[in-house]
Amino acid sequence: MRLGFIGLGTMGRPMAFHLVGGGHSLAFFVRRPEAGLPFTSAGATACSSPAAVAERSEVVFTMVTGTADVEQIVLGKDGVIQGARPGSLVIDMSTIDPTATRALATTLGAQEIDMLDAPVSGGPQGAQAATLTIMVGGPTRALDLAKPLLHLLGPTIIHLGNNGAGQTAKACHQLALLVTAQGVAEALALAGRSGLDLERVRQVMLGGVASSRVLELFGAKMVSRDFKAGIESRLYHKDLGIALDLAHDRGLALPAAAVTMQHVNALVGKGRERDDLSVLITLLEEMSARVDPSQT
Amino acid sequence: MRLGFIGLGTMGRPMAFHLVGGGHSLAFFVRRPEAGLPFTSAGATACSSPAAVAERSEVVFTMVTGTADVEQIVLGKDGVIQGARPGSLVIDMSTIDPTATRALATTLGAQEIDMLDAPVSGGPQGAQAATLTIMVGGPTRALDLAKPLLHLLGPTIIHLGNNGAGQTAKACHQLALLVTAQGVAEALALAGRSGLDLERVRQVMLGGVASSRVLELFGAKMVSRDFKAGIESRLYHKDLGIALDLAHDRGLALPAAAVTMQHVNALVGKGRERDDLSVLITLLEEMSARVDPSQT
Repeated sequence: MRLGFIGLGTMGRPMAFHLVGGGHSLAFFVRRPEAGLPFTSAGATACSSPAAVAERSEVVFTMVTGTADVEQIVLGKDGVIQGARPGSLVIDMSTIDPTATRALATTLGAQEIDMLDAPVSGGPQGAQAATLTIMVGGPTRALDLAKPLLHLLGPTIIHLGNNGAGQTAKACHQLALLVTAQGVAEALALAGRSGLDLERVRQVMLGGVASSRVLELFGAKMVSRDFKAGIESRLYHKDLGIALDLAHDRGLALPAAAVTMQHVNALVGKGRERDDLSVLITLLEEMSARVDPSQT
Repeated sequence: MRLGFIGLGTMGRPMAFHLVGGGHSLAFFVRRPEAGLPFTSAGATACSSPAAVAERSEVVFTMVTGTADVEQIVLGKDGVIQGARPGSLVIDMSTIDPTATRALATTLGAQEIDMLDAPVSGGPQGAQAATLTIMVGGPTRALDLAKPLLHLLGPTIIHLGNNGAGQTAKACHQLALLVTAQGVAEALALAGRSGLDLERVRQVMLGGVASSRVLELFGAKMVSRDFKAGIESRLYHKDLGIALDLAHDRGLALPAAAVTMQHVNALVGKGRERDDLSVLITLLEEMSARVDPSQT
């Protein structure tokens, strides 16, 4: 098929390569031309705008950071909507607000352009290994068309309902991930404060019902004090904000998520938004750290 | 070896059977004689008190509910300390307060009786399958003696330090487990409030970085609304209390654990302390449930 891709970042780059590897032609738009070189070398076509990408494509993928980025790319000046033909499909794989997603789908639908929201879990490693879990919202006919393409990106494709449902599921996923990370950070902070060996306590927890992917991945970085991201904390900050906005709109109290949000806010406030989420443990340590009176 | 066992409950029963199955002789004390019948049939000896058990045993295991129970069995009237010989060993596998554990070890040590704290993770299933994870605090010479016995109960035996360190690690484990459970409950409450299919959202999370044993076990029960315990919530209430007492003593702020504790307190307040911990999701639903004005 003729595919378009906008957002060749840490996630989008390997995903776009998998699509090309599946035998599809690719048009793309990048702000910095050098970011497109590996793709033009592989036979893909650089375009001057999202509209130009859409003109050449049956299906346009977007994989960018936030709600405003997607809105700009799809509805902005020289946006996808200006180039896309009726009957074409937009698949947004970014993690953005479910309410904004529904509005985008309605605007595109008025021009007979289908949309799927299809955010993912698995991170850069999952994108590279094509092992992403993909959460889909939108019409079944669009998913039927998209399925062979999405299968190039990951084995697990779960259809959750109409447009916005994929983003809502992603918000729930991120909420569980973040509260679990806060719990792991608190457990390891207590272990450290009690003088225990953190790696041994982590092994205990991995062997027990407290075991989690978060403990495996972020827990290891908490123990080794390796706070180089992975996925930068500012992205979790955005994602948990989406989940809490959703709860706010629905009048649903989520106390542990709210407490966790305050900690991620503090990470950002301290200028650590590009660190790994595992840096959460340092907040707890610093909050209760004894201050040497000779230093004050 | 000549072993003693006190606490033939849901956890203790299968554990004691594994010890007998390992070729050891067993003396035991139970309050209700009928609870001992399967063991006397298997050749074990019923004793009239913890002291009587200790008189016949080189190693005495205790597996009961709370700190006060262990203190009563070990130091109370006709307690273990009255019967135990110098050079014998007490292994407490209950989940109790680390500070009280250290005091017990000191009292026993004054009579040349060694003690190990060796709480476990894995629940009744792990006890039956002999797949428990065992967290040990206490002297190395005692652990060397105990290891072949503990290996009959589970493959993973982790020595964390002096007496109390095993209980501290268990407290950290339970803290991570409980905050994770609160996070899973909040994520599924948000999914439900948004009209999504909970099992599909659970599958999404199991496929992503939000995956955890808690999501597997408690998440399944939240989805199926099966709140029959497993391990009763009152035991998690006790365990999280131990972790927060420890943090209180050490001057360590643990905000998400504190919020989670309030929810488990509310479970107990609502008379659901014998339900499974998965009932946490109903608290969130009820807290934000729309009240039909015709009903008030």
